[in-house]
Amino acid sequence: MSLSPRLEALIDALQCLPGVGRKSAQRMAFQLLERDRSGAGALARQLDDALANIGRCERCQTFAEDALCPVCADDRRDGSLMCVVESPADLAAIEQSGDYRGYYFVLLGHLSPIDGIGPEDIGVDQLLAQIHERGVTELIMATNATVEGDATAHYIADRVDPETVTITRPAQGLPVGGELGGVDGGTLSHALRGRRPFAG
Amino acid sequence: MSLSPRLEALIDALQCLPGVGRKSAQRMAFQLLERDRSGAGALARQLDDALANIGRCERCQTFAEDALCPVCADDRRDGSLMCVVESPADLAAIEQSGDYRGYYFVLLGHLSPIDGIGPEDIGVDQLLAQIHERGVTELIMATNATVEGDATAHYIADRVDPETVTITRPAQGLPVGGELGGVDGGTLSHALRGRRPFAG
Ligand SMILES: [Zn+2]
Ligand SMILES: [Zn+2]
Repeated sequence: MSLSPRLEALIDALQCLPGVGRKSAQRMAFQLLERDRSGAGALARQLDDALANIGRCERCQTFAEDALCPVCADDRRDGSLMCVVESPADLAAIEQSGDYRGYYFVLLGHLSPIDGIGPEDIGVDQLLAQIHERGVTELIMATNATVEGDATAHYIADRVDPETVTITRPAQGLPVGGELGGVDGGTLSHALRGRRPFAG
Repeated sequence: MSLSPRLEALIDALQCLPGVGRKSAQRMAFQLLERDRSGAGALARQLDDALANIGRCERCQTFAEDALCPVCADDRRDGSLMCVVESPADLAAIEQSGDYRGYYFVLLGHLSPIDGIGPEDIGVDQLLAQIHERGVTELIMATNATVEGDATAHYIADRVDPETVTITRPAQGLPVGGELGGVDGGTLSHALRGRRPFAG
């Protein structure tokens, strides 16, 4: 290629982004240099700032700017409840629903032997220590409803002492207020299999 | 959202990339912070480096690290030939084919009234000045074979003095060495309409 060396280097670097191959990286580089230099500058600054200042919460593992995330730093929450999620976005979604008052543990992924991601990579030992330390009595497994999310939930459940901790999983079924037409087949058949007496 | 402010800022900044919405930006941010911090650091450095050092070639407008790009800086090329392309990648592709010995003009886009991109944004006046200055006698219109690329080629052709400059367009048709099955319908019908006597 007769692109300039720095342009090639930028195109290479953009390919660290998930789902971005050579062709999209090239399109991104041209677009940034040609039409959005201020956006590119802001991106560079935010990357540096995030790398320098975003770490993991010492307790729940979510991304945090301080030693503890805002949830873990709040000691008025219910320490007997802990919710296991795969990502900070899941934690944020549950917080937004406004109902949950317990703590979290954020795996930042799920078990994936094929990718070499084992229990130590998602922090299972730390989760078990947190359960003990906080005196958790109910562990809510809110990992994704996928094969990997289910396998991860089962692995963790097997490691928890059933004498002291009850394990639950959020109900699955039709979305509240949603139309039946917009629901995927898997959810629908799951909801039908799980049908309950009509309360009237 | 209960994501940290710096994480939100990074997710916002990533959305300056073409084709990246909130959801992909979030996935990118998590992935970089969780699994590729060195890649994220390299990306920040390459963005800064590119912004500080990559400008436009004074003659052909392509991205260049010096006042002139390597092609324009080479005075052994054929000044009577100029090839108009839409992007630095097109220039690189033609250079790689190895046959072309003239100069280029890189529009870095095409006319797009709907996006507010007019002749001044793609440097048509500068192109006309280059044609005059270099004594170009053949202008090869290698803009994309799209509606916009064709419209751009026609607009430029109308502005060029037909007494002194011949305008040509690269032949369109089947790829050399390609199988018929892999060719899209538009190219195929174009190639059939443009059929020529079989030389034997
Ligand atoms: Zn925390
Ligand atoms: Zn040049």
